[in-house]
Amino acid sequence: MGENKLHKIDLEPIGRRVEVPAGTTLLEAAQKAGIDLVASCGGVGICGTCRVRVIQGSVSPVSLTEQEALDADQVAAGFRLACQVYPQSDVRLDIPPESLTSAQKMQVDGREVETALDPAVQPIDLDLPAPHLEDLRSDLDRAGQALAERGFPPLQGSLERLAEVSSTLRTSGWQARLAIQPNAHFSNLVAVYPKSTPLAGVAMDIGSTKLAIYLVDLESGATLARLGAMNPQIAYGEDVVSRIAFANRSPENRRLLQTRLVETINQSIETLCQSSGIRSSQIVDVTAVGNTAMHHLFCGLPVEQLGAAPYVPVVSAPLSFRAGEINLNVAPDAQVFLPANIAGYVGADHVAALLATRSYAADHTTVLVDIGTNTEISLTHQGKVFSCSTASGPAFEGAHIRDGMRAAPGAIERVHLSASDAHISTIAGQPPVGICGSGILTTISEMLAVGAIDARGVINPADRRVRSRNNRNEFILVPAEQTGHGREIVVTRKCINEIQLAKGAIRAGINILLTECGITPADVQDFIIAGAFGTHLDLESALQIGMFPDLPHERFHQVGNAAGVGAKQMLLSRRKRDEAAHIVKNVSYIELTTYNEFTAQFVEAMYLRRGENL
Amino acid sequence: MGENKLHKIDLEPIGRRVEVPAGTTLLEAAQKAGIDLVASCGGVGICGTCRVRVIQGSVSPVSLTEQEALDADQVAAGFRLACQVYPQSDVRLDIPPESLTSAQKMQVDGREVETALDPAVQPIDLDLPAPHLEDLRSDLDRAGQALAERGFPPLQGSLERLAEVSSTLRTSGWQARLAIQPNAHFSNLVAVYPKSTPLAGVAMDIGSTKLAIYLVDLESGATLARLGAMNPQIAYGEDVVSRIAFANRSPENRRLLQTRLVETINQSIETLCQSSGIRSSQIVDVTAVGNTAMHHLFCGLPVEQLGAAPYVPVVSAPLSFRAGEINLNVAPDAQVFLPANIAGYVGADHVAALLATRSYAADHTTVLVDIGTNTEISLTHQGKVFSCSTASGPAFEGAHIRDGMRAAPGAIERVHLSASDAHISTIAGQPPVGICGSGILTTISEMLAVGAIDARGVINPADRRVRSRNNRNEFILVPAEQTGHGREIVVTRKCINEIQLAKGAIRAGINILLTECGITPADVQDFIIAGAFGTHLDLESALQIGMFPDLPHERFHQVGNAAGVGAKQMLLSRRKRDEAAHIVKNVSYIELTTYNEFTAQFVEAMYLRRGENL
Repeated sequence: MGENKLHKIDLEPIGRRVEVPAGTTLLEAAQKAGIDLVASCGGVGICGTCRVRVIQGSVSPVSLTEQEALDADQVAAGFRLACQVYPQSDVRLDIPPESLTSAQKMQVDGREVETALDPAVQPIDLDLPAPHLEDLRSDLDRAGQALAERGFPPLQGSLERLAEVSSTLRTSGWQARLAIQPNAHFSNLVAVYPKSTPLAGVAMDIGSTKLAIYLVDLESGATLARLGAMNPQIAYGEDVVSRIAFANRSPENRRLLQTRLVETINQSIETLCQSSGIRSSQIVDVTAVGNTAMHHLFCGLPVEQLGAAPYVPVVSAPLSFRAGEINLNVAPDAQVFLPANIAGYVGADHVAALLATRSYAADHTTVLVDIGTNTEISLTHQGKVFSCSTASGPAFEGAHIRDGMRAAPGAIERVHLSASDAHISTIAGQPPVGICGSGILTTISEMLAVGAIDARGVINPADRRVRSRNNRNEFILVPAEQTGHGREIVVTRKCINEIQLAKGAIRAGINILLTECGITPADVQDFIIAGAFGTHLDLESALQIGMFPDLPHERFHQVGNAAGVGAKQMLLSRRKRDEAAHIVKNVSYIELTTYNEFTAQFVEAMYLRRGENL
Repeated sequence: MGENKLHKIDLEPIGRRVEVPAGTTLLEAAQKAGIDLVASCGGVGICGTCRVRVIQGSVSPVSLTEQEALDADQVAAGFRLACQVYPQSDVRLDIPPESLTSAQKMQVDGREVETALDPAVQPIDLDLPAPHLEDLRSDLDRAGQALAERGFPPLQGSLERLAEVSSTLRTSGWQARLAIQPNAHFSNLVAVYPKSTPLAGVAMDIGSTKLAIYLVDLESGATLARLGAMNPQIAYGEDVVSRIAFANRSPENRRLLQTRLVETINQSIETLCQSSGIRSSQIVDVTAVGNTAMHHLFCGLPVEQLGAAPYVPVVSAPLSFRAGEINLNVAPDAQVFLPANIAGYVGADHVAALLATRSYAADHTTVLVDIGTNTEISLTHQGKVFSCSTASGPAFEGAHIRDGMRAAPGAIERVHLSASDAHISTIAGQPPVGICGSGILTTISEMLAVGAIDARGVINPADRRVRSRNNRNEFILVPAEQTGHGREIVVTRKCINEIQLAKGAIRAGINILLTECGITPADVQDFIIAGAFGTHLDLESALQIGMFPDLPHERFHQVGNAAGVGAKQMLLSRRKRDEAAHIVKNVSYIELTTYNEFTAQFVEAMYLRRGENL
């Protein structure tokens, strides 16, 4: 055994797995997996740029070289230099973004919709008379009365902010800019600046896998900068269920998931600010959407009850709290706003997508599908909205697929198969190292088209690219000599099954909503596909395997990150927040796990075939 | 020189001063001043019980003995063992309460008034059905709807409290007690407990010199425990003006004054809780009153503008904030309530006294006097209330009096003089070591009665107890052999002048309010004297020197700490808070510093004589 022993290395948040023999460094393992780590010094441990974090598994002890390059805090937090570390068991790594030579492909944009400006936080420039013997009003009465003259209710705020009003006025010739959040009863004092300081806001879509973060000018409504980032919680559980299980193991775990998420958001905000010439203290309002589990983990709320029937959230109403409560890198008294959830598994992100696409208000029959680890589906028909959630799993993120990976350079994203040949295209045109979600979808659609699989997903041994290993057939998509890492890229029966489960769940959800309304797929006039995967998927492939009803292409709309657009709209408009509350109240939620017809529909929908599937 | 050099040692917060030759330890100096420090080991540096803090001046270096007995933090904070330290200059010491063998006499009680229970924070016991498939409401909707059924508005709170609702319900069989503070729009969630946990509140009167703190049962209204403590800020400035000057020197100074005050309050709360079997986390509401400077320093608000004309506060409106904002030792989301101030020098403490005595609503002419370093005076006449503030100085606290001290054991509090003899009585019956405020008042009144001084305050050299030193006459009240420290206790011309200034300021304020209403002293039906000194003063002595108008004794009411009683009432009743706001709006403030007649009145009022003084 000894030298020949193989260790599985799981490279997160990219989602790439590789097996390496003992005696291979983590840097070599990453290279073998086709992932380029920065390693400026060529792997001799001097530069410290190949920093990775060991999350699970045992590895060789910290070397003297590493002790030189890393400080004690980093070592304590599990950071190592990939070039210095040898795995001693299966290992899970977290690769920080700065250690990657090329960024992952991130869909952060969605189809923009014009929003009338009506932000929750408003700037008020004060220019006040100084006190004198005939005008002995206190500093805050002076400011409050100027507000009252402009129709704003009385000022309220933390002691620190109230003190700042006084000190800013007294050091700036009785001028200041207040950022206030007025409601019917009082004006919440969010921040105090010198006169005319620009005010910004942050909108976020917190996905289980990806974060989309927008920095917005609150006075013009313009998006100043946007950024995609991996959700760092991936290292502690790939899907929502495993993350909830991790959080439930101890309060420290739950805090860790929150802290790591907030850290990543804070770094992203810092990057956005630097590119826009804004200080993070000028960010006076924040909106965030996400599924119910992300919502709870972001807020540090307990998630035990989301992990067990009947899956009840702690909070379902709209929530707002001081940014300082979770140490967000914005003005500490900024209010973070999260709209209501529809149910345990139809979160505020879907509400935001309904808001951004306005599909909930469509006057003709409209489907909205937001594909992710959980896929949320809404059907609007004759003024009513029905929603459900279905566990489509992480296959479309490249997980549970033998050579699956997320959408990073070298990932196969499009495939054209002929009877004997394969044309593949990869992200960034690099030699192929794996298959991302949209790649596996087209691969299976093409395999079906050329007869390499049948409708049940059974691999046809007659195809020349099929070989049998351990009594199981597998399809060699790319031979070893054509890949970036010298190992073949293969589609197994298990990979095909994973996609069948995912597309079956989505299609069953769609069918059940149609059944509830007593209509057929042909009645659907508009079919909106939201989310990152939904934007990149090849529509024809999806239709080919029956993931969606076989409607004319022009009825489909791939709108990108609609949830992010909705979050931005709620940042810019209080009326949009009200509209979101209205949506939540008027949606009929259909629980699929207890739905009679679900299993039958699901089994039927797993067949790979174009058409009605009803 | 050398050995014969004398150093002045200022012992705070007792307010005793003593001169000692170089080579005297601080413990010996304290003993010489008649102040008993705990020194269990007899002064050899083993026990560590004579801990004092050196605030000002230079002293001998930290000895090895001290390094053994004190930890590094204590040394860094200026703590020393009095038995080990030799002064090398004039020195100011802060003696912590635990280092004193006997507590100071503290007036914390006032005349109690029955208050109808209507507290701002209320307990709500929940007993909810568990969620099931037919009832998927979120945990907070479940709690919120139970509140709504009892007529309370929607729940709002910090993330930490909201999380606690869920975890408490889920670990206690869906039962919990919420402490909520409802207003017209929402129910603020203050704290979460197991069902039936008792709720308590704290009321405070923050005086420049003394603190009075009450722990109150919010459900019965009963006072569970009460405590007086010295304001630790005294070590940084005896009166409000010098404390403001200290705070203005740097933001660190301002924070230090706040921190030391809050530390003392927190220790007091701990003591109150221990004696009542209450945990500090069960304290869900706090009210505090104090003069405007104490109000600002307690809240950490800037005080620069209180130190310079036109003396404008940062805040004059009622203020409330989270206890956690100032690290108060109570439930962190408890709201601290401070009522409005009337003006820069008529603070919320006077508002509380007007509230507690209801003198503002009297249907016959009533005077309320609250004597302190600043004395606030209100006159209610024909439904109108006039208030002023006058700088009476700290003489009645024993300061600026040669042998003055605060009301601690050994302080002379009553004196009876005959032509040749003196009968004195001291606090706790101990041998005399100094004179406290009420003692100096009766001494001067008695000196006037026996002709040892005249109305101008001039000492009569014909009295046998008068001797001349450095060309100045002084009155020997207690010969050296009868005192606790072996030095004579003496009244000088300067001591008499200090009392003349203090009583003149008070009397001038009273006279000006009477003049404003066009009435004479005889029209005053009720004359209410509030505050600690006001409770202990000998009324006949005060009348004898003309500090108050010469009314029949039965018109005077010495009511004790009315401000503290008012703070307690506002803790127990929201209606009392509204009443306080009503008082502030309806008081006419008269600024004496710019009042035409003030100087003439003041000069006249300094004469020591019974009568009208008008």
